[in-house]
Amino acid sequence: LTTRLPAVGTTVFTRMSALAVQHGAVNLGQGFPDFACEPKLVDMVTEAMKAGFNQYPLLAGAPVLRQAIVDKIAAIYGHQYDVNSEITVTSGATQALTTTILCCVHPGDEVIVIEPAYDSYLPAIELAGGVPVLVQMEVGADGYSVPWDKLTRAVTPKTRLIVVNTPHNPTGSVLRAADMQALADIVRGTNILILSDEVYEHMVYDGERHESMSRYPELAARSFVVSSFGKTYHVTGWKVGYVAAPAPLMVEFRKVHQYNVFTTNTPMQHGIASYMADPKPYLELPAFYQRKRDLFRDGLQGSRFELLPADGTYFQCVRYDAISSQSEAEFAEWLTSEIKVAAIPVSAFYRQGKESGIVRFCFAKKDETLALALERLARV
Amino acid sequence: LTTRLPAVGTTVFTRMSALAVQHGAVNLGQGFPDFACEPKLVDMVTEAMKAGFNQYPLLAGAPVLRQAIVDKIAAIYGHQYDVNSEITVTSGATQALTTTILCCVHPGDEVIVIEPAYDSYLPAIELAGGVPVLVQMEVGADGYSVPWDKLTRAVTPKTRLIVVNTPHNPTGSVLRAADMQALADIVRGTNILILSDEVYEHMVYDGERHESMSRYPELAARSFVVSSFGKTYHVTGWKVGYVAAPAPLMVEFRKVHQYNVFTTNTPMQHGIASYMADPKPYLELPAFYQRKRDLFRDGLQGSRFELLPADGTYFQCVRYDAISSQSEAEFAEWLTSEIKVAAIPVSAFYRQGKESGIVRFCFAKKDETLALALERLARV
Ligand SMILES: CSCCC(=O)C(=O)O
Ligand SMILES: CSCCC(=O)C(=O)O
Repeated sequence: LTTRLPAVGTTVFTRMSALAVQHGAVNLGQGFPDFACEPKLVDMVTEAMKAGFNQYPLLAGAPVLRQAIVDKIAAIYGHQYDVNSEITVTSGATQALTTTILCCVHPGDEVIVIEPAYDSYLPAIELAGGVPVLVQMEVGADGYSVPWDKLTRAVTPKTRLIVVNTPHNPTGSVLRAADMQALADIVRGTNILILSDEVYEHMVYDGERHESMSRYPELAARSFVVSSFGKTYHVTGWKVGYVAAPAPLMVEFRKVHQYNVFTTNTPMQHGIASYMADPKPYLELPAFYQRKRDLFRDGLQGSRFELLPADGTYFQCVRYDAISSQSEAEFAEWLTSEIKVAAIPVSAFYRQGKESGIVRFCFAKKDETLALALERLARV
Repeated sequence: LTTRLPAVGTTVFTRMSALAVQHGAVNLGQGFPDFACEPKLVDMVTEAMKAGFNQYPLLAGAPVLRQAIVDKIAAIYGHQYDVNSEITVTSGATQALTTTILCCVHPGDEVIVIEPAYDSYLPAIELAGGVPVLVQMEVGADGYSVPWDKLTRAVTPKTRLIVVNTPHNPTGSVLRAADMQALADIVRGTNILILSDEVYEHMVYDGERHESMSRYPELAARSFVVSSFGKTYHVTGWKVGYVAAPAPLMVEFRKVHQYNVFTTNTPMQHGIASYMADPKPYLELPAFYQRKRDLFRDGLQGSRFELLPADGTYFQCVRYDAISSQSEAEFAEWLTSEIKVAAIPVSAFYRQGKESGIVRFCFAKKDETLALALERLARV
C-alpha cells in the first residue's frame, strides 16, 4: 500500500503524551485540561440520552444547537448567520478544518498556510491534491506576528484558500484590527477563500477582544469560521465543533461532510445546546484562564526561561537559549525525561522543522499541577 | 466555489425523512430504530462522564474498547487482531469507510463498487481522485446476488480496492461461503485490497451465519473490516464505529484518520466498552430483528407488494409492479404523501438511477409502528 501521506508520522502530541506517561512527567505538552467540566454539562448530556436523543440528528446538526451557535455569534460578533443554511455541527474542529479543505481545494490549487501551523492543515491540503504555500511568522521581542507583506507576495492566480488561526496555536499570539485590515486588503477583489481556525476564540486576555472573521462582513462573506466546544467547555474528548460560513460555501461543505462523517453525536449536541443557554461559562473563560496564565508566568519569572507574550489560547511559549543549545525536540524530550515536565517543540509546527529555541507549555491545568510543574522547572 | 462533488445532492435519506415529517407519514425510509436503547447503556456513558473520561482518548481509540472489539471478533469469527496496531475506533462507520478510501486510493486508481451501493462509497472515491468501476447485482426470483463472473471481468491492473457490503444495504441479501470463495479467487495473487462494510454483521436471520472477512485469513489479510455500534446497540446518533485491518494497512488508515477527526467521543467509547462485557445484546439481535422482519413480512402477505428475500440487515425490499408503473422515486413519494408510509427507492443506490420497480422499507421499528404502517400499506 503506497502511502497517501508520505510526510506523516505519529503526531507530536501523541508522542509527547506517551513520553510523559513513561517518565511520570507533568504533562504540559498536548493541549487539554486536567480538570473536570462543570457537572451540569454532564447532567445535560445524560438528560438528552434519557429523553431519547440517540438517533441520527439532521446532517447539519441538531437545530437547537445550531440556534444557540447563531445566537452566540450574533451576540458577541454582531454577525447574523442563517440557522438552516450557514451552520454545520462537526465531529470536532479538526473534522471541520479537513472537510473545509477537502470541499474547496482542487488538485493543483494553492493554499497559503502561516507557520508555525497546527499539524492537520498540511496533510489535509495534500489529501485534497492542493499545493501548500508556506509563509513564516516573524518572532521578535514582542512575540510572533504575521508578515502581511510576505503573505501578499505569496498570493498567485492559483491561490484558492488562506488558512488563518487566531488566537494562534502554538504561539499564543492573536490577530488585531490592523491584521484584519491587512488580510482584507489581500483578498479584496479576488476569489480567495479564508479558513479561520478560531477554536480558542474565548481565550483572549488583558481585556483585548477576539478578532473573529465574523466581525468583518467583508471577510465573513468568504470565510469558513471553525470553533470547538471541547476547548471552550473543558471536554476535548467530546469531539464537537462547528463551522459557520455563507450559504453558498456551506452547500459545498455539507456535500463532503455528509459522506465524511454524515453527522455528529446527538446527545452531546443536545446537552451542549442546553448548556449554552447560559453565556457565563464562555464569558468567564478569559478571566479563568488569564489567572492560570499569570500564575504560570509568575512562577517562571526569575527562571532561565524567557517568556514570550501569551495574549490568547492556553499555551505559553518560552525561549530556552540561556539553558541549552539542543534542538527543540531534544530539549522537549530532555525536559520530559529529566525534569519531568512535558512540553511541545514549536519546530513540530513547521514542515521543515525550523529551529527557534522555543518550546510550548499548556497551562490548562489545575493550580496544583501548575505548581508542581513550576517547582520542577525552577530546578533547570 | 467550483464543487468537488458535482454528482452530490441532498441524500435520499434526508429528503425522505423530511417528506415523512411533512406528510405525517410513518417513516420506514431512513434506517434507524424508533425505540430506545437499553437504559443500562445510557447509564454506562453517564458513569464514564462522571468518572472524568472527557478528554482526548488515544488516536486509535480507548484501549478498553479496542480490547472488547478484539475479544468479540475472536469469539465470533476466530480471528485474533492485535489490540494496539489493528483496531481503530471511528466517528461512525461512514467515517471509517471514507477514511479507508482516502488512505488507499490514489488519483487514477480503480475501485470496484457493487450496485446497488450505500451512497457514501462513490463520493469518497471521487474525493480521493479514484475511478469507480460499477458492477451491478442481479435480481432474480430468489433475490439479489453478486455476479462474480462480471466482477472478475471488471478487474484491471489499475484495480486498487473492491468494496463489499454484507449483510447488504439496501437489498437485505447476504454473502455466503461460495461468494467468499469467489472473492478470494479474484484477489489471490493481486495487490487488490478489500473494504468490507459489515455494519449489519449482527443481523443475519434463519440460523445462517455472517460471513465476515475476518473468518477467512486469506481475505482478512487484505481487508479493512468496518462495523457500527449505532446499528448494533440501537443508537445510530452516537456515531461510534470501528475498523479492523492488518497492521501495515492500519498504519495508513491512521495517518488519514488523525487529520480527519483525530479521535472519537471518549465517554461514548468507555460506555460502549463496559456494555460489551455482556455479549447478550448482540447475540440476541438476530432473534430480535427476525421477529420484526417476520411480523412485517406476514403483514404484507396477501398484499399487492411482492416480497423479496430479507436474509440480513433491517431492510425489506418489495416489488410494486402489480401496483404501479411509476418510477421508484415517484412511487416512494406517492407512498409517503398518499399512503403515509415512507420508503426509499432502491434506484437511489445506483449512480445512473437504474429502475427495478423495487422500494426498501426499514423494519427497525416498534411493533406498533410496524402495525400502523401495515394497516396503511394494506390499503394500496
Ligand atoms: C488533537 S491533539 C492536540 C491538541 C492541541 O490542539 C494541541 O496540543 O495543540
Ligand atoms: C446515514 S443515514 C442512512 C441510514 C442508513 O444507513 C440507511 O438508511 O441506509
